Amino acid sequence: MRAPGFFLAANAKMESLPPVSHKVLAQKKYLFTPGPAPVPPEVLLAMARPMIHHRTPEFSKVLDSVRENLKPLFGTRHEIILLSSSGTGAMEAAVTNLIAPGEHAVFVNGGKFGERWSKMLSAHGAVPHEIKVEWGRAVRPEQIDEALRAHQEARAVFMQASETSTCAVHPVAEAGAVTRRHGVMLIVDGITSVGVFEQKMDEWGIDALVTGSQKALMLPPGLGIIALSPVAFERAQKLKTPRFYFDLPRELKAQRDEHTTAFTPAVPLIFGLHESLSLIQNETLHHVYARHRLMAAAARAAAPALHLRLIAPDNPAPGVTGILTPEGFDGSALVRLMRDELGVSVQGGQDQMKGKLVRIGHMGYLAPFDMLVAVSALEIGLARLGYRFEAGAGVAAAQAVIAQGT
Amino acid sequence: MRAPGFFLAANAKMESLPPVSHKVLAQKKYLFTPGPAPVPPEVLLAMARPMIHHRTPEFSKVLDSVRENLKPLFGTRHEIILLSSSGTGAMEAAVTNLIAPGEHAVFVNGGKFGERWSKMLSAHGAVPHEIKVEWGRAVRPEQIDEALRAHQEARAVFMQASETSTCAVHPVAEAGAVTRRHGVMLIVDGITSVGVFEQKMDEWGIDALVTGSQKALMLPPGLGIIALSPVAFERAQKLKTPRFYFDLPRELKAQRDEHTTAFTPAVPLIFGLHESLSLIQNETLHHVYARHRLMAAAARAAAPALHLRLIAPDNPAPGVTGILTPEGFDGSALVRLMRDELGVSVQGGQDQMKGKLVRIGHMGYLAPFDMLVAVSALEIGLARLGYRFEAGAGVAAAQAVIAQGT
Repeated sequence: MRAPGFFLAANAKMESLPPVSHKVLAQKKYLFTPGPAPVPPEVLLAMARPMIHHRTPEFSKVLDSVRENLKPLFGTRHEIILLSSSGTGAMEAAVTNLIAPGEHAVFVNGGKFGERWSKMLSAHGAVPHEIKVEWGRAVRPEQIDEALRAHQEARAVFMQASETSTCAVHPVAEAGAVTRRHGVMLIVDGITSVGVFEQKMDEWGIDALVTGSQKALMLPPGLGIIALSPVAFERAQKLKTPRFYFDLPRELKAQRDEHTTAFTPAVPLIFGLHESLSLIQNETLHHVYARHRLMAAAARAAAPALHLRLIAPDNPAPGVTGILTPEGFDGSALVRLMRDELGVSVQGGQDQMKGKLVRIGHMGYLAPFDMLVAVSALEIGLARLGYRFEAGAGVAAAQAVIAQGT
Repeated sequence: MRAPGFFLAANAKMESLPPVSHKVLAQKKYLFTPGPAPVPPEVLLAMARPMIHHRTPEFSKVLDSVRENLKPLFGTRHEIILLSSSGTGAMEAAVTNLIAPGEHAVFVNGGKFGERWSKMLSAHGAVPHEIKVEWGRAVRPEQIDEALRAHQEARAVFMQASETSTCAVHPVAEAGAVTRRHGVMLIVDGITSVGVFEQKMDEWGIDALVTGSQKALMLPPGLGIIALSPVAFERAQKLKTPRFYFDLPRELKAQRDEHTTAFTPAVPLIFGLHESLSLIQNETLHHVYARHRLMAAAARAAAPALHLRLIAPDNPAPGVTGILTPEGFDGSALVRLMRDELGVSVQGGQDQMKGKLVRIGHMGYLAPFDMLVAVSALEIGLARLGYRFEAGAGVAAAQAVIAQGT
């Protein structure tokens, strides 16, 4: 039986099968949300180790190791701080430790997470100045320069390395050149960047780089991670802003000097991180980044083959691909159908892109061949909703990219 | 071979064995720290389920269920809010959502965690007024009354239901009668109480009751949990204090109305909580509390049998027992020896009790017979350090309590 909307390529033949319950396809689940991402069995098992106390030599050894082995992913020689929170908690830590109430800051608003910087700055009494960027576009370094000229009282620029809501990357290296020239701090949300593509925190002049556990680190959510430059650390120490649980100098003192955490940490996630960093080391970062590039290229290739547009064609993120749903089709219904009928979880658009976007995450424990599954489910979902296209064109395009990459 | 310091009871005989490496005893690990506590295999397995996204009907069902099934442990009909943080994060949420900068509050300082309320209040610009309580003692309700008379501008009383650092309980029901009379909020740290012994939040007049995942809830650390009375919730909504990640009205709106969390939650811990609450329901809360009472009584009984004193003889906590190390013996060395040579983790004293106290945790996934292991290791540790006592007297005393309890 042919699904509505499918056209077979002229030379293709298809055996007729009786209709099947959706349970045949949806039995096995595939997770392509841009976080949480799948967790490798090795990591799940490491997390299921019996509990230990966190003020023991055994825990200290693991903590020291993960803090050290995270450094290449951040591109830093400086200190890494683990927090038991989601990535948002670590973002807030950057705000409350580096900016005082009443101080000014510039932020890049190119999506939902850029906007979040502003909400946090306002919540803590700072004065945010917006650089507005169209969803799907990258900020231009000149815009940052202009904003810093217009707001010379600004202490810092807050931005995303990769804006998850728009599937776009921003030019952090170039932004760093600008903030350095102006002598202000650069604070970067790397939640869908660290471990996905190369970050050169020290070289680019990033003062605080934040990530979360549930993306390229191949862990469940529950760990926020932040690296601070010496400049940022000194400022955090000097600044007497209201903070307790997210007090970074206190936390760094505990982690660096006492080899434990200030408060009871998410022990299994730290065990799991130890395992996932070992998987990353075995694969090598070079290959991890190449794998993400290839997955992204394969996912992207499906769009034109299905006559669909990318939300961020000029600066697509290596960790998540955003495909605009065709005019007149309900993207939310598509995402629901893919999840409930096909067992394939992708994510829709947020806020202004609600119902208009399908986001396919490809971070962490996923491989290029998995993109065939994501694209196939996208095709079947679109066909079921009545969109007409050449069946298999998306999968074939993704496959061609994978073949080329080998 | 007889360990130094051991005296055998007059009628006891002992077969002679060759000396053994410490690895014979320390191979299997026993966790008796007052958090993290052991996690049942059923819960570890539930946490190792493949990752799912948190904005799905599947996740919503689990979230709704755990929020509902936590209520009997809190003794409340009101709303429960889960936070991805340690218990300290949830304590801080109580402070920043219920007390504005410049406002006054009374706090019970009977140990390290009482002191923590004060540090948090100060960090956020509030004015804490101390009720000083000797370590190991309970606050007297009259002291709270006096403090509220002396500080009529106080908005709330902050206290612990059970002070983990001193192994003592405070009279929360009586405190609630006082705070009700004065018309101020009562905010209680129940981190080593909720699920350990009965909490009657609504009946006692508690406005905010906080706990963490790594004690009686039989989970790893990483979830902070807070229940709010309608009065507290209304105040949190009105109060425009600086907060973002720990914004309770926003979080409650997400959890109650949208059946998800405001920020990416610690998904595996919520799966695990679903499983541990089901284990608790099967055992029944009545029996869970009786089990904790019996474990505590067994652990306590060892102290006089070994001619040792309890730090909190008059108001001992059901979740953790504090035994003072004998004069002239180094408690920290004892705790290290028990852990490294015997494989039995207990915890020493904190701050002013450092080196003077052994704390045996008995919360969550432990049973009365396990107390024999803890007491036995305590005996062997003491004997190795040269303390002299009748061998087996502590174990026999614990055993007698267990036998009596059956």
